[in-house]
Amino acid sequence: MSIRYISQKLAQQIDEELMSSNTYAFSLDQLMELAGLSCAQALTKSYPVSSHKRVMVCCGPGNQGGDGLVAARHLHMFRYEPTIFLPKPGNKDIYQRLLKQCQNLNIPILKEVEEFEKKLGVSDLILDAIFGFSFQPPVRKPFDRVLRSLKNSGLPIVSVDIPSGWSVTDGPQPLYTQEDEQGKSEPVETIDPEVLVSLTAPKEGVKGYKGRHWLGGRFVPDSLAEKYNLNLPEYPGVDQVVELPRA
Amino acid sequence: MSIRYISQKLAQQIDEELMSSNTYAFSLDQLMELAGLSCAQALTKSYPVSSHKRVMVCCGPGNQGGDGLVAARHLHMFRYEPTIFLPKPGNKDIYQRLLKQCQNLNIPILKEVEEFEKKLGVSDLILDAIFGFSFQPPVRKPFDRVLRSLKNSGLPIVSVDIPSGWSVTDGPQPLYTQEDEQGKSEPVETIDPEVLVSLTAPKEGVKGYKGRHWLGGRFVPDSLAEKYNLNLPEYPGVDQVVELPRA
Repeated sequence: MSIRYISQKLAQQIDEELMSSNTYAFSLDQLMELAGLSCAQALTKSYPVSSHKRVMVCCGPGNQGGDGLVAARHLHMFRYEPTIFLPKPGNKDIYQRLLKQCQNLNIPILKEVEEFEKKLGVSDLILDAIFGFSFQPPVRKPFDRVLRSLKNSGLPIVSVDIPSGWSVTDGPQPLYTQEDEQGKSEPVETIDPEVLVSLTAPKEGVKGYKGRHWLGGRFVPDSLAEKYNLNLPEYPGVDQVVELPRA
Repeated sequence: MSIRYISQKLAQQIDEELMSSNTYAFSLDQLMELAGLSCAQALTKSYPVSSHKRVMVCCGPGNQGGDGLVAARHLHMFRYEPTIFLPKPGNKDIYQRLLKQCQNLNIPILKEVEEFEKKLGVSDLILDAIFGFSFQPPVRKPFDRVLRSLKNSGLPIVSVDIPSGWSVTDGPQPLYTQEDEQGKSEPVETIDPEVLVSLTAPKEGVKGYKGRHWLGGRFVPDSLAEKYNLNLPEYPGVDQVVELPRA
């Protein structure tokens, strides 16, 4: 039996069940810590620190961005040199705390697109934690420009959960910016990550993904996996990630 | 430069700095998750699941017990068969949540010493998370009996941070129960773990410890390690534990 690719709706449902006090009672702090650690482990197993030390970690304003902040901290502990790009910091308390933890490790934190583009020119690798499984088009500014810069950089990209800009349901699709006051919208580039880290279970939109594919988030209870027929593979040893066969 | 063995007072100070919103701003949820994961990893690296599947996880009422609950959950994810013994459940909210997470994985949870002793007879290994770095003698009931049962079982013991009952400052010392109403106290056995998992930094009391010794808690910022001259070793790869040279 092969692994199940789950819908956006089921991904949200599973997240709710993991955190509900009536069911699995995990805190967001716990799940984000383990998810971000998974991302840092998958990145390390894909690109050794000796050749890919300088990692640009791009964080969106939601929980996906929080996973990125946790990953950046663990990458620092793994002796990478992460830089965080965070154009729209989330305002949840947990987001502020995760950001502070990174600041206290002296991880550079960029907010301006120009600074980010400059630093991208001297980076080895990108961790894309911009949009997660709640993503709905169109793309808001400045993320259209950010996605174009990622694509044009020619650097390898590790995407978290869903490559940013891809449809969670249908994968890479023509993508546009939000309409401006004159009702005009512009096309947005879609990125093509070398590595993908699916969290909990892969999403429908990455069914045709051809790159290196990891599964992370080793916290899904067997009963939950069985309830939704997730058919998760065995994780090896003490790892927080398991590699999935290439499509 | 060799690793620093820290005092009880400094251990408390470091914990406070890690969690203060003025300094490193970690949540207890995050630190406990990573500490418990370290313990589960060290146990797995010391005793493979193929030969030591049935693990009795003994939890005290404090944060050390919380680490034990997290470790039990990760051991379950690593395909061990943990049983939790918890004679005095802590009443902090986080403790209740960690316990619920284990209950929802159908990990057996024992509260009675008699049940515990019976189950110990069919266990392969013990994880000792009873007393942590805040321990002060004398020993309260029923932990005198619990320590004796652990010792008499002849099973290998993995202790978290400080072997339960050892002085955090002076190591194994003559130990007594709390005085009863007649002013009488009884001697308490001290345990002799095969494996020790020190968290953050080893404590003064384990300087003479001769068994296999792991360091876990890969979250100590360099600036904090430097401030207190901890001289922490490098952790390998993506591991959450590093083995220390034997004394």
